[in-house]
Amino acid sequence: ARPRVGYYFTGKTGAEVPLAEIKERKVGEYQSIPVVVGESDSVYDAISAMFLEDVGTLFVVDQASRLAGVLSRKDLLRASIGKQELESMPVSIIMTRMPNITVCKKDDLLIEAASLLIERQIDALPVVNGEDNHPYEVVGRVTKTTMTKALVDLVQTERPLGGDRS
Amino acid sequence: ARPRVGYYFTGKTGAEVPLAEIKERKVGEYQSIPVVVGESDSVYDAISAMFLEDVGTLFVVDQASRLAGVLSRKDLLRASIGKQELESMPVSIIMTRMPNITVCKKDDLLIEAASLLIERQIDALPVVNGEDNHPYEVVGRVTKTTMTKALVDLVQTERPLGGDRS
Repeated sequence: ARPRVGYYFTGKTGAEVPLAEIKERKVGEYQSIPVVVGESDSVYDAISAMFLEDVGTLFVVDQASRLAGVLSRKDLLRASIGKQELESMPVSIIMTRMPNITVCKKDDLLIEAASLLIERQIDALPVVNGEDNHPYEVVGRVTKTTMTKALVDLVQTERPLGGDRS
Repeated sequence: ARPRVGYYFTGKTGAEVPLAEIKERKVGEYQSIPVVVGESDSVYDAISAMFLEDVGTLFVVDQASRLAGVLSRKDLLRASIGKQELESMPVSIIMTRMPNITVCKKDDLLIEAASLLIERQIDALPVVNGEDNHPYEVVGRVTKTTMTKALVDLVQTERPLGGDRS
């Protein structure tokens, strides 16, 4: 006798979903909106932006809106305990500059971006458009928060993605 | 004919390891060493400790070495752009205090700790010993870095854990 429809046991539970699925996920499926400041903005304005937008990393763009630098919370904390005036110091003095910025693209594998965060000991990667050796357009960000969410969503497939679990 | 020993194809690749494995992992298998400061230490000393130890979150302990508070990079950045003297301000003024601290224990599931980081919008959890409603001993920390590493190790099982991938 065939089992009743609706009670068919496939022998697979959520816990047996193949890992192949997460291996093939792309950065573009997980990226968040980037938060950017201009390279002539002050360190004080950058700190304000970091609090207002509640992000741990800011990307710095030039006048043509191309990626010029990255500011971590650590960079801003280091500057803020220095003796200089934060209102008159441009972020370009303290930012990490191209070509020392690690970037990724939306078609890169999420897991490769996660590896880069660990290897380079950074909290976030800008997701960029454009050819290498040309100024990049910043189109997104992926962070350790992105990866923590991906781990939770991967394992807890019973729960709706992005749902409120509190 | 049976396949030759050593060339038996099981039909399983590394990419098909069941997710059940990561679902059952415990916090204690992944936790790092906690970095703590005393509650009468100055904000300046806490910022120095954060840079020296290269962590994003510090735990604050009382004189009996029990968990009293948590300091995020954001807490320290907020204090550092204020008008007060960082050398004379104790961390107890700006820290998040018990009972508003989210904690975990070494036998908790790693994935539940990851969920807490996302739900509570925090970067790190202290791993504690002791009964609830009594002062906790801090024995470890798990962070979004821990979770990013777990995701990478989960997927890239071909690579040795903790190996240099640069």
